[in-house]
Amino acid sequence: MLPKAILAIAALAFSPANALWPIPQKITTGDSVLFIDEAVRVTYNGVQIITIGYNPPAGSNFNSKEIVQGAVSRTFQSIFSNNFVPWKLNPRNSNFEPKLAPLNRIQTIAIQQTGKDTATTFKPRAGDVDESYSLTVSKNGQVNISAKSSTGILHALETFSQLFYQHSAGHYFYTTQVPVSIQDAPNYPHRGVMLDLARTYQTVTDIKRTIDAMSWNKLNRLHLHITDSQSWPLVIPSLPKLSQEGAYHPSLVYSPADLAGIFQYGIDRGVEVITEIDMPGHIGVVELAYSDLIVAYQEMPYQYYCAEPPCGAFSLNDSKVYDFVDKLFDDLLPRITPYSSYFHTGGDELNANDSMIDPRLKTNSSDVLQPLLQKFISHAHSKIRAQGLSPFVWEEMVTTWNITLGNDTVVQSWLGGDAVKNLAESGYKVIDTDYNFYYLDCGRGQWVNFPNGDSFNTYYPFGDWCAPTKNWRLIYSHDPAKGVSKSHAKNVLGGELAIWSEMIDGSNMDNIIWPRGSAAGEVWWSGNVDTATGQNRSQLEVTPRLNEFRERMLARGVNAMPIQMTYCTQLNATACTLFA
Amino acid sequence: MLPKAILAIAALAFSPANALWPIPQKITTGDSVLFIDEAVRVTYNGVQIITIGYNPPAGSNFNSKEIVQGAVSRTFQSIFSNNFVPWKLNPRNSNFEPKLAPLNRIQTIAIQQTGKDTATTFKPRAGDVDESYSLTVSKNGQVNISAKSSTGILHALETFSQLFYQHSAGHYFYTTQVPVSIQDAPNYPHRGVMLDLARTYQTVTDIKRTIDAMSWNKLNRLHLHITDSQSWPLVIPSLPKLSQEGAYHPSLVYSPADLAGIFQYGIDRGVEVITEIDMPGHIGVVELAYSDLIVAYQEMPYQYYCAEPPCGAFSLNDSKVYDFVDKLFDDLLPRITPYSSYFHTGGDELNANDSMIDPRLKTNSSDVLQPLLQKFISHAHSKIRAQGLSPFVWEEMVTTWNITLGNDTVVQSWLGGDAVKNLAESGYKVIDTDYNFYYLDCGRGQWVNFPNGDSFNTYYPFGDWCAPTKNWRLIYSHDPAKGVSKSHAKNVLGGELAIWSEMIDGSNMDNIIWPRGSAAGEVWWSGNVDTATGQNRSQLEVTPRLNEFRERMLARGVNAMPIQMTYCTQLNATACTLFA
Repeated sequence: MLPKAILAIAALAFSPANALWPIPQKITTGDSVLFIDEAVRVTYNGVQIITIGYNPPAGSNFNSKEIVQGAVSRTFQSIFSNNFVPWKLNPRNSNFEPKLAPLNRIQTIAIQQTGKDTATTFKPRAGDVDESYSLTVSKNGQVNISAKSSTGILHALETFSQLFYQHSAGHYFYTTQVPVSIQDAPNYPHRGVMLDLARTYQTVTDIKRTIDAMSWNKLNRLHLHITDSQSWPLVIPSLPKLSQEGAYHPSLVYSPADLAGIFQYGIDRGVEVITEIDMPGHIGVVELAYSDLIVAYQEMPYQYYCAEPPCGAFSLNDSKVYDFVDKLFDDLLPRITPYSSYFHTGGDELNANDSMIDPRLKTNSSDVLQPLLQKFISHAHSKIRAQGLSPFVWEEMVTTWNITLGNDTVVQSWLGGDAVKNLAESGYKVIDTDYNFYYLDCGRGQWVNFPNGDSFNTYYPFGDWCAPTKNWRLIYSHDPAKGVSKSHAKNVLGGELAIWSEMIDGSNMDNIIWPRGSAAGEVWWSGNVDTATGQNRSQLEVTPRLNEFRERMLARGVNAMPIQMTYCTQLNATACTLFA
Repeated sequence: MLPKAILAIAALAFSPANALWPIPQKITTGDSVLFIDEAVRVTYNGVQIITIGYNPPAGSNFNSKEIVQGAVSRTFQSIFSNNFVPWKLNPRNSNFEPKLAPLNRIQTIAIQQTGKDTATTFKPRAGDVDESYSLTVSKNGQVNISAKSSTGILHALETFSQLFYQHSAGHYFYTTQVPVSIQDAPNYPHRGVMLDLARTYQTVTDIKRTIDAMSWNKLNRLHLHITDSQSWPLVIPSLPKLSQEGAYHPSLVYSPADLAGIFQYGIDRGVEVITEIDMPGHIGVVELAYSDLIVAYQEMPYQYYCAEPPCGAFSLNDSKVYDFVDKLFDDLLPRITPYSSYFHTGGDELNANDSMIDPRLKTNSSDVLQPLLQKFISHAHSKIRAQGLSPFVWEEMVTTWNITLGNDTVVQSWLGGDAVKNLAESGYKVIDTDYNFYYLDCGRGQWVNFPNGDSFNTYYPFGDWCAPTKNWRLIYSHDPAKGVSKSHAKNVLGGELAIWSEMIDGSNMDNIIWPRGSAAGEVWWSGNVDTATGQNRSQLEVTPRLNEFRERMLARGVNAMPIQMTYCTQLNATACTLFA
């Protein structure tokens, strides 16, 4: 039991100072107040820039100044239009706001980019871009932002925006933390979210809003799992039947313009989009458009042929499949290369039993199938490399099928256990999507039907395979490279959250991802260990910041769920703490 | 393994016929098409009534005709303004819609109320109102609705509205099931949702939208857990400090007008609102307004004094507490009696240790505390009865404290196991809120903080006490009176879903409640057993209807979550079924 004095919690106000998310690597703050208004002068490399309502023009010729101007405009939007009065973060009925006189103001925001962006800046491979930045706010209202890349400037502006609250008196906006000095950079270069657009179609609006929220969380990779056996929403002009027959509805497609728009929207916000066409499994829907390429489509009982309905995989020994993939890639890849350096060929959960019912194969022997799969992957990846892209695969290509991959290939691990460690220590570049931590769809029960009788009785009470729900405290406890030998830790490029969409659409996407995605985002950016003390960051420090950041996301139009009741958010974190 | 022929699922379209929720007790349908337009003539007891834009006037003098007119207006709104094209419920790219010629139409809707409403109709005790109705739609477009009470007419109109879809050609609305003949009535008289308004304040808008969705689900009781130790949002004019000091924010209160508005909104929709002031535990917040009534407020470590922070209970032996309760009841109860026949005094989780630190008691002996508690409850309930209200309590008043209650008292059970059965067979009127099925907040992990060290290690991976998530298939499997002896089954009045709001606010309320609340709603209305066959309704029959009803709720503005991906909703239910 703790001494009574420590537990005198009611009197302790939670101070919103330093409530930045993700927390910067190095930060010092003061306790002076400054206000800010829209008239503040903003310069970029010494030249005044447009601050309100600027959107970079469409097109793939990216320009540092336009990207920075767009980011400044969004920063102004966040501060002046989508801000919030932080009453939920201060004791009830307390007078926590600064006086409106004197109205000392931010005078200028001077942004200095110390390096030059290149085409690589806007479509980097992991590690290509220096994302670091520094940010200072002086007592006399001078803001200095410095970064080598425009990407670093985007991060700095986001951090800057989080310093400010709205005043309940109206159109006043203030920070209480001046002077501020921040030096910041990420721990991992790949910080991602994977959206499944195939099981459930997700609207372009929902995807773009997710990119917005990702940028606030300093997440920088959006992986679009854009096709699967359930549907093919992606328009491929040279193979028009794919979306005509494969989309759930004629209106539920991503046109080339939609795709380019998503790519550009991401680049403007520091988020690179990675497209996945999952193969050779998880592609049964092609059967609806082009027959004779697929085996086991909709085969039942599905559990013998795939993980969930409908089954369906490429035939592994058919030249027509190669022709199809060539045509698909010739159409799609040139539309990706202006915006991204990666292409994901999937490769998860290929079930050898599918080939048992392939009339050309009639076997599930890996002695037969492995060489065919090797040939197929090598062919596909050579096409990808010929376009200047680097391949991405799911881990089974290595761990189940022992496929030889190029050194440039990134392996995405989801099966948990020691997979990330083993892959990294074997020399693979690895992304951690361990389902025990990063599958945000888990824990809400079954979506398949169980008929009365054996099926019902066996599966009652209908928990899902990856239950329980991954709550944010669990996610926050997990660091992708933890346990990996020091010499191989750099092979762990980062992590990705997975949003498989069996039961996720626009009605709950935000609530599923946020603020749990924020928990991962902080670990990937500045870690779950306090660098100053070397100790794990305590939930007593982290929870209040996440409560605040949730309110900020909500104010900006993202429907993030609450993680604590108002009673807790209004008091020091010890008020809602279980002392063992 | 099932024969291949049965599994040829792709060719089988799911027919949306009979996709009503909850499914009526008796229904026969045909396959003729009729359209409907706003010009349809509607009569109530032979007199034409207003059909568009009618809202019953405010006030507590309820009038059957006004209530029916309001319901007809909402029915028109549902059919003509908030309807949907059911492409998600038919095979992709199929031509499932009726031709637009001939446009045979619904001609008249004749509503006949065969009994007379009384004041009791609008604020019934369980069993007071006959909720049954009959509904027929003839091939020549005559609709006949008949019910003894206006409540039955409300249910009939809701069922009627669910017969219609929007046509993709535009402003055309049709049913494909004519002729229709329905006779319907509920299995349980009490079909409820409990909203926790104290841990998190919920807006009046969110509460009213929940009433809307409840009425679509034929749910008829909204239980407002309106105060707790965390906050007191309810304005009590004669005890103004309660909400002034106890609300989270001056704006986050329910004024007398708000409360009356919620009551009235419910009655207009067949939903009786039941107010709960939880006592003598779960009331610590009173300490902020009126001191010397509460013991153990915010006591830490909380686990010794209550289930979650902050602790706080009435002192059990203090005349000032009686004075406070008298004053509170004299103010509040007369404002409830025009609208409701129940008042809930709570009584869950009273922790005897609180009295250990009560300077007047200094004991946790039930020999001392039980008589004091008996005296307190008897006093409170006599005040309630004096106002013509019946008391409600949580089960611990009986099962933990052995309190003698009046025969009119309803006992709400949440602890699971055999509690409902035991209470019912002991003669108590029981409501089933078994946390294993009906606690919809469960399964998303912990909200309290765990500091590094023992607390962190003990509670990792931070599952919550009532995990897992109660998915709809589990909820649907549970019938409150199952296992209760036939002679006592009538004592089980029904069920209530609990929405405890530690991590629930407007951002996720709809998604938490719907469509899981629909699953309970159907069990409580027409059961999880098919009356014709005596077999459990199969998920193969239930899931498609729930998929459809989810789309209908979404179209009407309630953010219900999807329970299956579009691949499943577009096919016969066997397509997404696990055959063991």
